[in-house]
Amino acid sequence: MSKTLFKGIISYPITPFLAEDNGVDIKTLGQLIDRLIQDGSHAIAPLGSTGESAYLNDEEWSTVAEASVKQVAKRVPTVVGISDLTTQNAVRRAKFAEKVGADAVMVLPISYWKLTEREIFQHYAAISEAIGIPVMLYNNPATSGLDLSPELIVRIIKEIDNVTMVKESSGDIQRMHRIFQLSNEEIPFYNGSNPLALEAFAAGAAGWCTAAPNLIPAWPLKLYEASLAGDLKQAREVFYKQLPLLQFILKGGLPTTIKAGLQLRGFDAGVPRKPLLPLDSAGQNELAALIKQLNG
Amino acid sequence: MSKTLFKGIISYPITPFLAEDNGVDIKTLGQLIDRLIQDGSHAIAPLGSTGESAYLNDEEWSTVAEASVKQVAKRVPTVVGISDLTTQNAVRRAKFAEKVGADAVMVLPISYWKLTEREIFQHYAAISEAIGIPVMLYNNPATSGLDLSPELIVRIIKEIDNVTMVKESSGDIQRMHRIFQLSNEEIPFYNGSNPLALEAFAAGAAGWCTAAPNLIPAWPLKLYEASLAGDLKQAREVFYKQLPLLQFILKGGLPTTIKAGLQLRGFDAGVPRKPLLPLDSAGQNELAALIKQLNG
Amino acid sequence: MSKTLFKGIISYPITPFLAEDNGVDIKTLGQLIDRLIQDGSHAIAPLGSTGESAYLNDEEWSTVAEASVKQVAKRVPTVVGISDLTTQNAVRRAKFAEKVGADAVMVLPISYWKLTEREIFQHYAAISEAIGIPVMLYNNPATSGLDLSPELIVRIIKEIDNVTMVKESSGDIQRMHRIFQLSNEEIPFYNGSNPLALEAFAAGAAGWCTAAPNLIPAWPLKLYEASLAGDLKQAREVFYKQLPLLQFILKGGLPTTIKAGLQLRGFDAGVPRKPLLPLDSAGQNELAALIKQLNG
Amino acid sequence: MSKTLFKGIISYPITPFLAEDNGVDIKTLGQLIDRLIQDGSHAIAPLGSTGESAYLNDEEWSTVAEASVKQVAKRVPTVVGISDLTTQNAVRRAKFAEKVGADAVMVLPISYWKLTEREIFQHYAAISEAIGIPVMLYNNPATSGLDLSPELIVRIIKEIDNVTMVKESSGDIQRMHRIFQLSNEEIPFYNGSNPLALEAFAAGAAGWCTAAPNLIPAWPLKLYEASLAGDLKQAREVFYKQLPLLQFILKGGLPTTIKAGLQLRGFDAGVPRKPLLPLDSAGQNELAALIKQLNG
Repeated sequence: MSKTLFKGIISYPITPFLAEDNGVDIKTLGQLIDRLIQDGSHAIAPLGSTGESAYLNDEEWSTVAEASVKQVAKRVPTVVGISDLTTQNAVRRAKFAEKVGADAVMVLPISYWKLTEREIFQHYAAISEAIGIPVMLYNNPATSGLDLSPELIVRIIKEIDNVTMVKESSGDIQRMHRIFQLSNEEIPFYNGSNPLALEAFAAGAAGWCTAAPNLIPAWPLKLYEASLAGDLKQAREVFYKQLPLLQFILKGGLPTTIKAGLQLRGFDAGVPRKPLLPLDSAGQNELAALIKQLNG
Repeated sequence: MSKTLFKGIISYPITPFLAEDNGVDIKTLGQLIDRLIQDGSHAIAPLGSTGESAYLNDEEWSTVAEASVKQVAKRVPTVVGISDLTTQNAVRRAKFAEKVGADAVMVLPISYWKLTEREIFQHYAAISEAIGIPVMLYNNPATSGLDLSPELIVRIIKEIDNVTMVKESSGDIQRMHRIFQLSNEEIPFYNGSNPLALEAFAAGAAGWCTAAPNLIPAWPLKLYEASLAGDLKQAREVFYKQLPLLQFILKGGLPTTIKAGLQLRGFDAGVPRKPLLPLDSAGQNELAALIKQLNG
Repeated sequence: MSKTLFKGIISYPITPFLAEDNGVDIKTLGQLIDRLIQDGSHAIAPLGSTGESAYLNDEEWSTVAEASVKQVAKRVPTVVGISDLTTQNAVRRAKFAEKVGADAVMVLPISYWKLTEREIFQHYAAISEAIGIPVMLYNNPATSGLDLSPELIVRIIKEIDNVTMVKESSGDIQRMHRIFQLSNEEIPFYNGSNPLALEAFAAGAAGWCTAAPNLIPAWPLKLYEASLAGDLKQAREVFYKQLPLLQFILKGGLPTTIKAGLQLRGFDAGVPRKPLLPLDSAGQNELAALIKQLNG
Repeated sequence: MSKTLFKGIISYPITPFLAEDNGVDIKTLGQLIDRLIQDGSHAIAPLGSTGESAYLNDEEWSTVAEASVKQVAKRVPTVVGISDLTTQNAVRRAKFAEKVGADAVMVLPISYWKLTEREIFQHYAAISEAIGIPVMLYNNPATSGLDLSPELIVRIIKEIDNVTMVKESSGDIQRMHRIFQLSNEEIPFYNGSNPLALEAFAAGAAGWCTAAPNLIPAWPLKLYEASLAGDLKQAREVFYKQLPLLQFILKGGLPTTIKAGLQLRGFDAGVPRKPLLPLDSAGQNELAALIKQLNG
């Protein structure tokens, strides 16, 4: 498991926008990253699904990538999401991320036309060849429209040099079992499905990629620590306590619910970019109650 | 949790047929039940999916029900599968099971036409009213053609007196989370999906309904004991060791693979009833290797 | 297309039960069959999904099979549903149907455990070998739990002597295209999905297997005749007029809605067998309006 | 049906790229558009799924939009695809399309995070308010990741002024039935699923949105004309002749297969943009045979 760059809680910051959607708000982003690190995150992952990466133009993307890495300043590792529909632009972003100091990049094979396995493989190969830092393969059929089988994932990791780890967000625990089996336990896998956090750690996940620390930083850590200690009863107990909030933020969409929750915690990070709309008031009330119950 | 009648490993015997499919082989069934109990099963569940209940005629069903309960002889609890397409016959079977001494009955809402929630509810109510022993609700969309939501399951258990527990075989861990949440942890749930055994125990399952003890009796017990002790590392280790066999028996169909495996262990329990066919020779070789690896 | 035994509208009678579910009501069944023939049905198909075949015991099944064939009395062809979970009982029923004079049998591969292609093939082969009349293969994944691919269907029809035609009820028009292509237009296919009736005839279906003639006998015939004449505009017009009723009877379950509709037309055929429940009063009102609009 | 701007065959040109993926090849695009019009297309739809719109940067998109409209030069109507992940950019593109002379715009609600119905509605409302030309709503869950129900589609068209028609590409004929029913036959619907072309016309589609005219221009027209004349037999015959090619281009992805087919017809339009790869040689051989059979 020497390839395991990250362990524990990998936190996903949202990307704040200036008022009237006037571009990205780098100052607020920096403050949020500081909070996440101070609260104990083991790594920071800007420009993921939570970071509305797909909704940024290229200039905004670069601004956020560079600012994030600088703000983290090597206090913990940074993994930058560089996903793009075209291979050319994904390669460009990967190189940029490496240049500004990212420790790794995360790549989701976003699709419009469904890609064949050969196309997916070559997409990862092209990105990997262009850089010298590790690549985290990211499988999330609900957002990408593509579902990579464990067999394909393991083949990509075995055959392409820099691809060394996988974030699995399909929500199907059997995928993690297969990755574990196919790789003789050697490929570190990370869970990206919040309501699966307990079981993913039970199954041997190296970490949990989550936006929950934006709202309830202590709780994901408690789950990780209990799991690491092998204490199943404590893990179960702290998981079920945070589960209602995890279910809520997933169901409502992470940019929408996390931005609403930050506001409720007194941290103004604005609203998501349209067509995404802010959380409605019924949702805000429900979320407020969930946060209060956990943060006291 | 005072309603919890069963805990641990609930074992599902196959139903052996006489040569040339000349009816059920009660003598061999008795020997198999004895083995399962001697090997440590915490309960015995005849006439389940594994027991080819759906393929028996009424007379055969009654013969197996009565013989099984007598053979168990209260050494452990017996839960008898009484599922039938019509409410009238399911009621008749439930009464028969109670009369011959079953400790509980298990009811899968088998369907041809999809049932509405009202029809499912009334089916359970009619069965429950006819008997005085507990009913285990069984959800298994892959075999029944009906998928009961956690909300419906919990409502049935709360509103119908004798229905007190649920066997969840959808393979979706989130269902168990919801049942746990909706019932304030009070409804005992049992896992019926073999490759989910580790995570179901992690999530708080009271037991594991499985045919695996027919082939590898020590291993399900090891997983249960590690889970009960809250030892996550040991639980994970013994789970991954038995997982290949659990995957194999599920994929090949339990009557087919368990009967083949018993033969491989030197216990002749015949073949499944047609249209089900015996395991082919490639499958037998694979299964033999899996069993040998575990049983030494 | 010399194998085409049936063309046009194949009508599915419900199976009436005596009051208090005291067995099958043969007298009423006979009256219903007479009505269907007098109203112009091109064939009669007792003991199908509509006929609650799956909910009858063996004795009831035999009674209905024999009475139906006798009542039809060769005025039109009769195709008897002989589906059963076990191969042995399906064979027994097929022989019985032939003995009492059926012109063909219809076979749905009902499943509890999913069958492999080999198991499905052998099931059809065993039935076919036992009789000398044609077999209509029936694919209906929603009720049987098994979905037969066009490739498998065509292989069975080509390789097993008596299997000569297929009723496709998956509701996917592309399946009919594939059967048409794979068989060089030579295998007659019948549509079993009511809301697909227009398009199935457009695609070349030899007939429509439907329970609608129980309620609106003139309308399916109008659609068939317009299609036969190649008059697309007339076909479209008469299809859209009957479509709301077709959607309603499918959505509510055929035994439930057809029995309610017969009552509304002044023909008392009782209620479906439990767990199936009678149509509720809101549904009855909606159905009454739909029938009135069409029957004037 | 006064809102029906387009009828018949709406042709989708691919977007050619210069060698080494050095930007869009406007000259070749112009020649292709000329061919499509000369071959009888009733409308031209640049920047659709076939046009790799999702893979173009903003500058390329604008170049193609303007050049396409100018090349068509009002010989037939032009409908420009303006879909984008953000509302702001979709609005900008819609205004640009109107400014350069498009007759209508087509809008697919591309998604990363699943949109709520309210978000989808407001996305269409914002685009519609910004322009004075008609909007064609486009439903294609396989590429957009969002599936709009007929109920939502009809509500958007009824409540938002400029949205007047719908392109349905889910491939489910029942959606067209519902749109027909919910709108009292008044909303023109267009079929975007090639292998459904016969049945969509049977069900009353106003047109067929297709890339097939790039390869076999005479055949879609033949189907449309037979359908318009109400000649079901002729429609069926010409449909089944072209169906193998329609199945092939859909299965292989339209940019990939159409560009390969153009090459096979002696028209060099280059290859698709990576990660999309050119058709492999086995596919080219199969496609060549299919084209030859139809074009003689």
